[in-house]
Amino acid sequence: MKAYRKELWFQIATRRGFVNITGEIEQCLRESGIREGLCLVNAMHITASVFINDDERGLHQDFERWLEQLAPHEPLSLYRHNNTGEDNGDAHLKRSVMGREAVVAVTEGKLDFGPWEQIFYGEFDGRRRKRVLVKIIGE
Amino acid sequence: MKAYRKELWFQIATRRGFVNITGEIEQCLRESGIREGLCLVNAMHITASVFINDDERGLHQDFERWLEQLAPHEPLSLYRHNNTGEDNGDAHLKRSVMGREAVVAVTEGKLDFGPWEQIFYGEFDGRRRKRVLVKIIGE
Amino acid sequence: MKAYRKELWFQIATRRGFVNITGEIEQCLRESGIREGLCLVNAMHITASVFINDDERGLHQDFERWLEQLAPHEPLSLYRHNNTGEDNGDAHLKRSVMGREAVVAVTEGKLDFGPWEQIFYGEFDGRRRKRVLVKIIGE
Repeated sequence: MKAYRKELWFQIATRRGFVNITGEIEQCLRESGIREGLCLVNAMHITASVFINDDERGLHQDFERWLEQLAPHEPLSLYRHNNTGEDNGDAHLKRSVMGREAVVAVTEGKLDFGPWEQIFYGEFDGRRRKRVLVKIIGE
Repeated sequence: MKAYRKELWFQIATRRGFVNITGEIEQCLRESGIREGLCLVNAMHITASVFINDDERGLHQDFERWLEQLAPHEPLSLYRHNNTGEDNGDAHLKRSVMGREAVVAVTEGKLDFGPWEQIFYGEFDGRRRKRVLVKIIGE
Repeated sequence: MKAYRKELWFQIATRRGFVNITGEIEQCLRESGIREGLCLVNAMHITASVFINDDERGLHQDFERWLEQLAPHEPLSLYRHNNTGEDNGDAHLKRSVMGREAVVAVTEGKLDFGPWEQIFYGEFDGRRRKRVLVKIIGE
């Protein structure tokens, strides 16, 4: 069994944003030399997500509006977590909806995806450097 | 290490619905000959889910009502994604709540489940053929 | 390839609660002797979650308030599932938001975590003994 590991770094200029990281994960898979196995991609921070969905700008605006409705950033006093001096209580909840990780099958050296599947980094408390972990195991 | 792959096809007659696919995944596991490992089951489409919960009709009605409340199908104009000509903006959000995938332990040749765990395909934009991917790795 | 399996038992004294189980998972990893691979941790019950977030008391209070808002326990008549004689319809929905499982990379014999990542058992229908499954595969 082979194992491959890489950290990807991101700094989103705004508080929230989505970045298509599919190309970077494909590059990791090529580097790994693994042809059959599983690829785990996870946010290493608890106010960010890795998820799979469509690369469509309107949809991303829908996610933004919807997550703000489910867990609004303000008023900051809504979240006891913000009593610690943070202002990211909402980001922990938004990340819970969108998920921490994606597990993707690796088949014949490729990410085994349906027609529209793309991997995204979802940032909910940006403007600082944060990481995504890629771990691939297989043969 | 062995690797097994199969696509399962579904066509749900209605826009939304839940199908218990546990038996089909068990059949895949038997075909794989894998006794110890991990089984990934994921929707290959971004308006559908694979999730684990109870096979109880009332609960499924609760999911339907609750997801419609969190992300209603109408008005279609609620979703910018629908400006692309689609009418499935809500389906992308519902799938985000229910999740894309389940990872199940394989132990002694069986899906290593608690007493009530069952695997479901969750459709949020049906009436066409869609796929689920089963990937099993192990020995 | 090595495979390790263990069940962890919990009995939460209240209906809902969060328990940091990171130390127990680290203990499992040591017992497994696995240095490189993947660690699956999942609730074996469908009214409980395993998720990764911050070990901060205020945040856990935020989760509690927020989940009660998204899927309130009462009135019990809100959930058709409760017509079966259960009173845990809400718990199935809360667990869907928080997720069934976490998959964690294993690197150099350690859980490969970001700075604040901790694994939690999330109970939404407690006051009885329930299980978490730990399955680790690798080398």
